[in-house]
Amino acid sequence: MKKGLFLIILLFQNLLLLAQSNELNTIKGKLSSLDLILPEYSAPIANYVKFVKTGNLIYTSGHGSCARDNKVDIGRLGEDLTLDEGYLAAKRVGLCLLATLDKAVGGDMTKVKRIVKVLGMVNSAPSFHDHPKVMNGFSDLMVNVFGDKGRHARSAVGVAALPGNMSVEIEMIVEVEN
Amino acid sequence: MKKGLFLIILLFQNLLLLAQSNELNTIKGKLSSLDLILPEYSAPIANYVKFVKTGNLIYTSGHGSCARDNKVDIGRLGEDLTLDEGYLAAKRVGLCLLATLDKAVGGDMTKVKRIVKVLGMVNSAPSFHDHPKVMNGFSDLMVNVFGDKGRHARSAVGVAALPGNMSVEIEMIVEVEN
Amino acid sequence: MKKGLFLIILLFQNLLLLAQSNELNTIKGKLSSLDLILPEYSAPIANYVKFVKTGNLIYTSGHGSCARDNKVDIGRLGEDLTLDEGYLAAKRVGLCLLATLDKAVGGDMTKVKRIVKVLGMVNSAPSFHDHPKVMNGFSDLMVNVFGDKGRHARSAVGVAALPGNMSVEIEMIVEVEN
Repeated sequence: MKKGLFLIILLFQNLLLLAQSNELNTIKGKLSSLDLILPEYSAPIANYVKFVKTGNLIYTSGHGSCARDNKVDIGRLGEDLTLDEGYLAAKRVGLCLLATLDKAVGGDMTKVKRIVKVLGMVNSAPSFHDHPKVMNGFSDLMVNVFGDKGRHARSAVGVAALPGNMSVEIEMIVEVEN
Repeated sequence: MKKGLFLIILLFQNLLLLAQSNELNTIKGKLSSLDLILPEYSAPIANYVKFVKTGNLIYTSGHGSCARDNKVDIGRLGEDLTLDEGYLAAKRVGLCLLATLDKAVGGDMTKVKRIVKVLGMVNSAPSFHDHPKVMNGFSDLMVNVFGDKGRHARSAVGVAALPGNMSVEIEMIVEVEN
Repeated sequence: MKKGLFLIILLFQNLLLLAQSNELNTIKGKLSSLDLILPEYSAPIANYVKFVKTGNLIYTSGHGSCARDNKVDIGRLGEDLTLDEGYLAAKRVGLCLLATLDKAVGGDMTKVKRIVKVLGMVNSAPSFHDHPKVMNGFSDLMVNVFGDKGRHARSAVGVAALPGNMSVEIEMIVEVEN
């Protein structure tokens, strides 16, 4: 009898481990394990889309923060926001890009083969020169979520103005399994 | 005798419909049905080209207005040009990109599978934040011409300065049949 | 005896020509024949990489001058630097991109099929409008090194600020043999 109970407990433990490992195979589950929350995906209202897949590449639109409930989401680096705030802003934009990527791969992280190329546009005062340190907020997130597959080619640049005065806009190209 | 005449008229009508439908399969014909004119294609004079095809993707150079005979083609949004003028400027740049795409696919619209990705750079005063509404001038044109195949991923951004002080510069990636 | 010596000299001459032609098949050798020096490749220190290969395309990160030992490497066009200095700056960035490309193709130039697409971001005063003439410094270099394979689609744009106040930042997409 006791042996039977033991085997049943072992079985449940294994099922639990399997469920957790499956959970980590979703972007939502992986973020949860990092104490981060996947924002909700929302479609754009004009004649464009959030992503297009061609061959095994996904091209995303430029994303700003999708939540806009944090002061770091709006404003200009070197005027309104500090470097640390810019780092957080880029990370928050990264979460929104993950919500779009999640939609594109149906939540299945194992389909992501590589974050290929990223263009990071930072709303900058002409005297601000630390765009790479801002963009590290995005890049660190991608490597935390995807490991080496998250390491990307990247351009960081300061722009004169962004839609809605958002602080950071990022677009990316992702290689996925066909 | 009357029956023979009737059949001949029917035949001509069908040929006419066929010709019109073939016309709509060209970018020039489609624009004409929208009361728009395809600008002439012109090659650049420096060591670059207007487009490169690799695999089944066409990458275009950044285009401004190719006509430059309208005041909206030149100037800065938020200083020299209104939002409506910016919308028109982006549409006019779209027409020039279609002239390049027309060259790339030999005028055959049926070869265009998808407008994949667009980067829209708007000549902006630092206080201008409506870049998406400017870029809608381009995006609406693409959907009018190509239908759902015209819906693209898009980044809209404000830049400090553009070549020749043009108001809008746009580059795009297009998937075509091989 | 003399005939044998003659044949040996002929053999050496041919070997020398072969060596030179092989040398020209390397990016380093080709630059050397143009009296240019390939800079050393260096890896970035943050969570990104200098290039990613997907399919037969290499995407590079945005590069500034890797040497930073010339005054043209830093500053704003239309304020700190002249047009000629901007042309030189773009050429110098091109050399750094070639160092990265050299790494990506193991020095074998014959693997480069086409410089596909280039985005040139010029650190610009709002009144500066000659970005294409600056970017010609890059484009001329690519055509000098790769011939017609070096002709690319290109966007040239003026940005508000660049990392470390560098004068020019360039990213490129290159088609290579698989």
